[in-house]
Formats: sequence, structure tokens, C-alpha cells
Amino acid sequence: MKTLPENEKRGRPDIVHFALLGVLGSPLNKERLLEVYVHTINDRVIMVKPETRLPRNYNRFIGLMEQLFELGRTPPKGPALLEVEPKTLPQLLREINPSRVVAFSKTGKLRPLEDVMSKLSGGEKPAVIIGGFPHGHFSATAIQLVDEVVRIDLETLETWTVTSRAIYEYERAISLPLKRLKR
Amino acid sequence: MKTLPENEKRGRPDIVHFALLGVLGSPLNKERLLEVYVHTINDRVIMVKPETRLPRNYNRFIGLMEQLFELGRTPPKGPALLEVEPKTLPQLLREINPSRVVAFSKTGKLRPLEDVMSKLSGGEKPAVIIGGFPHGHFSATAIQLVDEVVRIDLETLETWTVTSRAIYEYERAISLPLKRLKR
Repeated sequence: MKTLPENEKRGRPDIVHFALLGVLGSPLNKERLLEVYVHTINDRVIMVKPETRLPRNYNRFIGLMEQLFELGRTPPKGPALLEVEPKTLPQLLREINPSRVVAFSKTGKLRPLEDVMSKLSGGEKPAVIIGGFPHGHFSATAIQLVDEVVRIDLETLETWTVTSRAIYEYERAISLPLKRLKR
Repeated sequence: MKTLPENEKRGRPDIVHFALLGVLGSPLNKERLLEVYVHTINDRVIMVKPETRLPRNYNRFIGLMEQLFELGRTPPKGPALLEVEPKTLPQLLREINPSRVVAFSKTGKLRPLEDVMSKLSGGEKPAVIIGGFPHGHFSATAIQLVDEVVRIDLETLETWTVTSRAIYEYERAISLPLKRLKR
């Protein structure tokens, strides 16, 4: 048995599963105001269509991921909901071309999430990067691409907690909860 | 094969799994300011100790639940992290004796979550009830016990989304994010 390099960043598809379920079920996504990408350690990028309904069952989610990495897309026919391509994080960011990029990391500067998302919401096309690995940090290359690295709590929060709170604060910053209630 | 009564409220331990992971990982829980109970349709109440670290893996979570319902507690020896007892929702609420109870339901009155949690935070010991069933509503008995039934979005949000947002808004209402950053 060999240990792969950066072993601490591997092998936790459950983190991606929980985080994506939270992302896809958010009002921000229902409004189609969100683009979601999953970048893997071996430089694959999964593009997730907003209308994707992921299996709630973990074993079925794993089956779906296996199909995705085998065929490059899923479902195999018809409009793709998930697609995977070889792509580095810099390449992805160049394609997205965001107005501002914030990464969340325990190595970042302590900042209230409310302020972070409020500032981001002022831009045309903001992006956030949230680590999905159980331990370890963003690579130096990844950090160079971001405008600011922030830390929103003294303790390390789980990926899905940061993801869902960031989305909710962004919704608040653009007054989405009130707008939706007034329709 | 028979269909059990209220079939639509059964058989989704994945909902409880996701919701509990979000609850237990929250700063509010890390501060020990949260009590968590799971009431099941056959009137069992699971008491969840705040220091509980649930398995992230769904199959292991199911194994833990099976042990819990077999032995009434888990782990089998030492201080219990999870305990289960026969108890109705009215009995549980009488024990907790909350200052104010709000239930989230798509049959409720449209209210911004921010307002709901801000009002709750003014009380000594507020409680929220969040449905963990895939479809269906709270029973009439359950509804009678609450001070207000609210609906926070035009569309039905997933249980874990409502749970994590309610906790975060409560944290905001008591200025917990800023307090923690200033330590």
C-alpha cells in the first residue's frame, strides 16, 4: 500500500455530496443565480447544471460519480447535468472570469461572513472558493488566484456549513429572501 | 406488502443524517447553546448530546441508529451520546418548557427567517420544530403546541437547509459570529 501525495485532501466524496445538496437546494440556485464547479485534486473539473437533482442516497451518489468519470458526462444521453473535463483551477477561473474571488481557509484573515459576502455582492460576477478536503490547505497556486483569503470562525467549520452559510449571506446581501416572499 | 399509515413521513433517515451533521457542526452547538431532539413518527425521541460526532458515512450512521434503537443508547457503555425513549411531541415540549415555539411548514404564514429568529432570540428558551419528513405536514396535535407556524420561502426548502439557516440566523441574532471573531 502506498500513500498518494497530499493524501489528506483525498477520498471524501461525502463532503462534496453534502455540500452539493445544500448548494443545489438553495433559493439562489432555484433562481439560477449560481454556477457550481467541483475541482478535484487531479485537475478535473465537474460542471454541475443548476437543475441537477442529486441522489440523496450516498451509495447512489457514488454510483453516479463513477458513471460520470467513466463517460465524462451524466446522464449518458440527452442534455448533460454533470460533465467532467481535465482542467486546472487557474484555467477554470480564467474561463469564469470573475469580478472578485474570495477563498475560505483557516489560514485566512478573520472576517465576518456578512461583510465578506456583502462586499462580494457589489461586483458583477463574484466567485468563492471553498475547500472540500478534510484537512490541508489550498495550494500556493490556488491562493495566488484569489483577491482575498478569509476565515469566518475561530474554529474550522465543515465544508457544507461554510458553503450553505456563504450562499445564504449572499442571498441576504441581494435581498433575495424578501424579494421571494413578496412575489 | 402493506403501506403503513402516513407512509410519506417515513423512511428517510438521510434527511435526519444531513440535518444533524449541519446542527452539530454549527458554532451555536460548539458554544453549547443548542439542544437537539429527534422525534420519530412512532413517538420515540432521540436525545443528541452536543459533543456527539456522527459518522459522515451514511451506512455507518444507519448502523449507529440500529444500535441506538436496539440498546436504547449509544455507545453501549460510558456516557451516552445518543439516547432514545418513548415520548410524544407534547411530552417532550412539556419537559423542555420553551419560552416560545415556532414550527416551520409550507402551510405556515410567510415570514422572513431573519424576523422569525430575531423575535425568538428575545426569549429565555426558544424552540423551533422542523419537519424531517419528505412530504406531508405536522399533525394537528403538533400544530396546537406551537405559538406560530411560519413559512420562509415560496418554495419548499429541504429540511437541512431550513435547519442550518435557522441556526445561522439565531447566531446572527445573538451576535455570535462577531463575538467569536473577537475572542
